[in-house]
Amino acid sequence: MSTAAQAFEFDAVELIRTKRDGGRLSDPAIQWLIRNYTDGLVTAEQMAAMAMAIFYRGLDPRELSTWTAAMIATGERLDFSRLSRPSVDKHSTGGVGDKITLPLAPLVAACGAAVPQLSGRGLGHTGGTLDKLEAIPGWRAALSNAEMLARLDTIGAVICAAGSGLAPADKKLYALRDVTATVESIPMISASIMSKKIAEGTSALVLDVKTGAGAFMKQYEQSVALARTMVGLGQAAGVRTVALVTDMNTPLGRSAGNGVEVAESVEVLAGGGPADIVELTLALAREMLDCAGIAADPETVLASGKAMDVWKAMIRAQDGDPDAPLPVARHTEVVTAEATGYIATMDAMAVGLAAWRLGAGRAKQGDPVQAAAGVTWQASVGDHVTAGQPLFTLHTDTPERLPRAAEALQGAVGYAAAPLTRGPLVLERIDAP
Amino acid sequence: MSTAAQAFEFDAVELIRTKRDGGRLSDPAIQWLIRNYTDGLVTAEQMAAMAMAIFYRGLDPRELSTWTAAMIATGERLDFSRLSRPSVDKHSTGGVGDKITLPLAPLVAACGAAVPQLSGRGLGHTGGTLDKLEAIPGWRAALSNAEMLARLDTIGAVICAAGSGLAPADKKLYALRDVTATVESIPMISASIMSKKIAEGTSALVLDVKTGAGAFMKQYEQSVALARTMVGLGQAAGVRTVALVTDMNTPLGRSAGNGVEVAESVEVLAGGGPADIVELTLALAREMLDCAGIAADPETVLASGKAMDVWKAMIRAQDGDPDAPLPVARHTEVVTAEATGYIATMDAMAVGLAAWRLGAGRAKQGDPVQAAAGVTWQASVGDHVTAGQPLFTLHTDTPERLPRAAEALQGAVGYAAAPLTRGPLVLERIDAP
Repeated sequence: MSTAAQAFEFDAVELIRTKRDGGRLSDPAIQWLIRNYTDGLVTAEQMAAMAMAIFYRGLDPRELSTWTAAMIATGERLDFSRLSRPSVDKHSTGGVGDKITLPLAPLVAACGAAVPQLSGRGLGHTGGTLDKLEAIPGWRAALSNAEMLARLDTIGAVICAAGSGLAPADKKLYALRDVTATVESIPMISASIMSKKIAEGTSALVLDVKTGAGAFMKQYEQSVALARTMVGLGQAAGVRTVALVTDMNTPLGRSAGNGVEVAESVEVLAGGGPADIVELTLALAREMLDCAGIAADPETVLASGKAMDVWKAMIRAQDGDPDAPLPVARHTEVVTAEATGYIATMDAMAVGLAAWRLGAGRAKQGDPVQAAAGVTWQASVGDHVTAGQPLFTLHTDTPERLPRAAEALQGAVGYAAAPLTRGPLVLERIDAP
Repeated sequence: MSTAAQAFEFDAVELIRTKRDGGRLSDPAIQWLIRNYTDGLVTAEQMAAMAMAIFYRGLDPRELSTWTAAMIATGERLDFSRLSRPSVDKHSTGGVGDKITLPLAPLVAACGAAVPQLSGRGLGHTGGTLDKLEAIPGWRAALSNAEMLARLDTIGAVICAAGSGLAPADKKLYALRDVTATVESIPMISASIMSKKIAEGTSALVLDVKTGAGAFMKQYEQSVALARTMVGLGQAAGVRTVALVTDMNTPLGRSAGNGVEVAESVEVLAGGGPADIVELTLALAREMLDCAGIAADPETVLASGKAMDVWKAMIRAQDGDPDAPLPVARHTEVVTAEATGYIATMDAMAVGLAAWRLGAGRAKQGDPVQAAAGVTWQASVGDHVTAGQPLFTLHTDTPERLPRAAEALQGAVGYAAAPLTRGPLVLERIDAP
């Protein structure tokens, strides 16, 4: 069948109407739709209407699997099967202070896996892994596929920009959803994430699905549904996939921003760092090693310093200097505790918003970010503080940003009279759809 | 406030999200949205997503009234207040064989009203009034506003193309809804129709809301809801508005097409014609005269021949020759009755589809139509026919269209052993929202 003939197999309006009225889309209809949207024959307004219809009506498992495969089919697929190590990837749905990829990738590589972390930049209140690493002097995000494969074989871990060749339909569709209020759809989020991960060619994948105030998915049930949907998609595509649903009511660690999060990650690799970062890094490492079939104890490997060696090699391989001082913000301001007591809650969204307002994040794609901007905090949930004691430090190169960042933190901390411990970080492990 | 400042008052994504999640849009938000969509600042994909959200979530009476007023505000408003006659308009939601405007406008004008029929072309299985009149040799649809006003004052009735100056937002939005499967929304249909009618400046309006198999609204409850919504919008804008919900399971009269419907209309003006056309014409005429405050008996005026005089003057005033023979199709084909008995049902949609396939209608905007194409039938509901007796005649200039048109009529007629009468044409009269 010729391409020209295929272009007329379906009518976009009929397909939108079918989904709008709760019907299901056939495999060829979905393939036609995604291919012709990517090629421009199905218009942006038609895909926007379809996306809104899917927001309300959803996609059943078969539709979703076909939709994801159709997005993958619009681009290239990488192949890690010739690597000397088993490949395993990790994806987080994004949280405040979530720098876990930075210590995790070198740790899992030090245990013997190949960890291809094709990452993105941040948009909104949660930072992007590439934005954080770009705070390291000299480091560059772009690698060719051949460079990435070579580094995976020798060093074991690569964190680099996802090439535009993977699932181009997703890139186009995501940009459309972003401007049409159709991002918040579990099937479309799942297809977006999993199309890139499956196209990337990893053999195994561990998903960190955040839930709570600072997460994209604020409702627990929705987070679990997202996790199950993605696990199902991964497994159906032959990728060993496990998800951890983890708490994102409280920001992770003691920093949110770019360079400040790199510094904290290096502390973890050096054997220190905040307990929650260490805990989540080890929990995810264990899942990744299990998926990759590697019997190693990541806690021992972390203590041995081998993960730090991989980190340094990984940063150097992308022209970064792991020993150079990280940039320091030109202006800082201290925000003090508003009350005396035990910290009961710290609103991850407020902290993320403050970091974003300080210049750590961007309002729209292509905006620059400040390497030194961000928020650090001296105490977190369970710690005792006294009213007036320094609690947060705001970092920015542009002091006019300070007032609105400080404003975001007003009331962000809840206090209790009695000591309490933070709840578990890992709320649920999901290994089946 | 400057226009530039106004352009940044709202964020389209936030407005879509609000409607998507079931919230209501404020008056300034709706005004901003419609104005900026018309100007291109709100993109087609954003409006498509909004239209789909409205499809599911609706607009409450206040939102709808503001939405309609905002569409009117994008264009010009006509003013009939200086006419020597009271103005009254009629709008039909479209049916098969619905040529009622053709005898109705001159009849109501002959009774003393000014009837401004700003009409459109057909799309799909129901024909457009302008397409029908263009079958008359020489007749032209386009008039300037000044020409229209002059003819309303002297002749009393004008049927012409709605200028592009009335509610341009509606024109743009309707074209978008047409390609995004978001046409079938009661609030958006109501806003589309009523924005043009209110902008047109008529003092009174009678709506003929069709219901049944051949209508746009097939469900009775939906038709009533549409009628109530439009009556509410009209009355809120100071237009005396009444709606009749009328049956469209059976095609009206004995013809569906262009020239064939003109011929039937002329029969009615001459005192003959099918009983249902006469009945509906008189029912609508009575409502229009009542709204216009004119005490005249349309049945007497029709019998007097004065309506025919107005018709001829109206056609001549737009360069048409009312006495010239109408075009005759180059090819005809007879479809015979499939059974013997009393006709119990005649599927309006099937008849409309057959006329459309013969060339009377268009598949997309801008397509040409055939002046002579259409379907005529020799019997209707309640009449007795014998199997094999000629029932329908297909008319077209392009004989390759005949087989698929005949196919559309297979099974279109239901037969009963006992005689029965057709149900009432006017099912409900609605004069309050």
